[in-house]
Amino acid sequence: MAQSVQVTTSPSYEVRIGEGILSQAEQVTSSYSGVAILTDENVAPLYLQGLGLPAEAETIVVPAGESSKSFEVLEKVLERLARQRLDREACLVALGGGVIGDLAGLTASLYKRGINFVQCPTTLLAQVDASVGGKTAVNLPSGKNLAGTFQQPAAVLADVATLASLPAHEFESGLGEVLKTAILSGPEALSSLETDAPGLLARDSQALSRQIEACVSFKAHIVAQDPREAGPRKCLNLGHTFGHGIEHIAGFGVIPHGIAVAAGIGLALEHAATIGVLEEPDLVERVQQLSAALELPGSLAELEARYHLSIAREDLVESMRADKKNRGDKIHLVLPVRAGEMKLDVILG
Amino acid sequence: MAQSVQVTTSPSYEVRIGEGILSQAEQVTSSYSGVAILTDENVAPLYLQGLGLPAEAETIVVPAGESSKSFEVLEKVLERLARQRLDREACLVALGGGVIGDLAGLTASLYKRGINFVQCPTTLLAQVDASVGGKTAVNLPSGKNLAGTFQQPAAVLADVATLASLPAHEFESGLGEVLKTAILSGPEALSSLETDAPGLLARDSQALSRQIEACVSFKAHIVAQDPREAGPRKCLNLGHTFGHGIEHIAGFGVIPHGIAVAAGIGLALEHAATIGVLEEPDLVERVQQLSAALELPGSLAELEARYHLSIAREDLVESMRADKKNRGDKIHLVLPVRAGEMKLDVILG
Repeated sequence: MAQSVQVTTSPSYEVRIGEGILSQAEQVTSSYSGVAILTDENVAPLYLQGLGLPAEAETIVVPAGESSKSFEVLEKVLERLARQRLDREACLVALGGGVIGDLAGLTASLYKRGINFVQCPTTLLAQVDASVGGKTAVNLPSGKNLAGTFQQPAAVLADVATLASLPAHEFESGLGEVLKTAILSGPEALSSLETDAPGLLARDSQALSRQIEACVSFKAHIVAQDPREAGPRKCLNLGHTFGHGIEHIAGFGVIPHGIAVAAGIGLALEHAATIGVLEEPDLVERVQQLSAALELPGSLAELEARYHLSIAREDLVESMRADKKNRGDKIHLVLPVRAGEMKLDVILG
Repeated sequence: MAQSVQVTTSPSYEVRIGEGILSQAEQVTSSYSGVAILTDENVAPLYLQGLGLPAEAETIVVPAGESSKSFEVLEKVLERLARQRLDREACLVALGGGVIGDLAGLTASLYKRGINFVQCPTTLLAQVDASVGGKTAVNLPSGKNLAGTFQQPAAVLADVATLASLPAHEFESGLGEVLKTAILSGPEALSSLETDAPGLLARDSQALSRQIEACVSFKAHIVAQDPREAGPRKCLNLGHTFGHGIEHIAGFGVIPHGIAVAAGIGLALEHAATIGVLEEPDLVERVQQLSAALELPGSLAELEARYHLSIAREDLVESMRADKKNRGDKIHLVLPVRAGEMKLDVILG
């Protein structure tokens, strides 16, 4: 089974989803004047050969992990492209998770003021989230993702076969975003995810393909309306302001992003109910059951129990204040009104 | 006297030209959430106060010269913005020559994926050339300007008063581009430049304002047609492929860019006559006289005499082969057909 989603930002591009899709990389890149591949030390031995790209394609392997999202690594990667004398019609293939996608996207937007790039995301989080939206970035000493561009890929190849080998915590990170997207999409998406939950946990390729396609379609629809995050795209932050606060308190990397987001969704629902924004009270119970079916924490209490942590509400609010999407000193939240309808820019406090 | 040119790229912006224009910086930046200024050690003591910006505006001073167009300096400047907690509605003011404009433009395109910037060019070259077109860049070990973006400023303030203190070689660099633009524009622009030549050399503010306005208007017109350098914009390379070859042989920095471009224009005219592209034979003589009036070399021989150099034709061709705008091994030239009409993509050899 293979699906395809057309993302109608400018320029528009295609996301292909399915088992064995990686082998289409050669065909997708055949019209460019040259090809380079950016990947990391973990992914290269597993999937580099599967791309089927010609041996003369330059392969750049960086260390796995967040430390590669630095200016030092960015410059080294750009210099590798320059030494290959790749011209403006060349293409960079990103093979890996979110770090590789962010770094490759930024490299492609900067090299000779912009070349093409093709994303081959190999984690669930990158397939459902980072591969659509065109955000690229590296980190600064002051914070994550503070330097970057908006750059759309020429194509995305999301091969669900790469998810079989994914460590549990990385898989959970993706599931948090799948849950978020179903709540944003509406009741039908929630039903579909409820049906697919056991298949997802078993990493069944049909369930994975179906849910990834749903996430990509929804995000593509939102991003097309708002490519530079001026308005409607903010809904994608559901659970994230709380989630980032939780990650910050626990120390980045301790709690997988998707786990923190799942607990953040629980907090957003609770807060929406408390202040009267939520108009569909059953949604709290429904999302809690779905979280349980996906083995995600449905509340801050569940997350605290799972990680043997205790997070004081005052500390959480304090760490949420540092989020880069706030303006001034105010904390901006996305809160559910009902499945498929969010209220944006609710000020906490 | 103050002029204003509207540049109709997307987004469109205004270039203000005249004496004392720098003092408008405060008014131009007053609507942003915060302001930072990027300048260099030479320019800061001369013109920083003249901007009239509030004392709380963050001022970032980098070393003067090409060495500041590096990833190391870029990251430091970005980190300074981050420590000021500037948000996405902030503005970066670039006060200086081409290096500062290129670095500030790239910083502004990357910080939080894009903030506004205002150019205050303080050299003739930056006022007539770099301030229009939206090209930003830093250098890589492999070559100049290999990493950058296309990013349009919010506004340009070109204050001719800053040209009074400009060293002779920097002034000459700008004159080379003024000469080039007049040839590209056509017979009337050539006549106007012939009239203004003595005034330009005397750095008369009216002659400067008039000629800068002509250059900016012409370049704005070309760039609006072709923001990403796909076609017509290539005409702006008149004299540059030869000129870069000359600069490369002499060692970068030995011969001012505009001097090399002026000799390159002489070579382009000579070559156009030889291969029968030139249909207005009088143009050779006219441009030579105009070059003399601007105290620019009208031919390679004049440049060799002025710099006590000897440049073999074979060496020149060899060094032109390395130009980043070539595709494959072929040298692409812009050659004059007549004043105001160029032939693009002529292959040398």
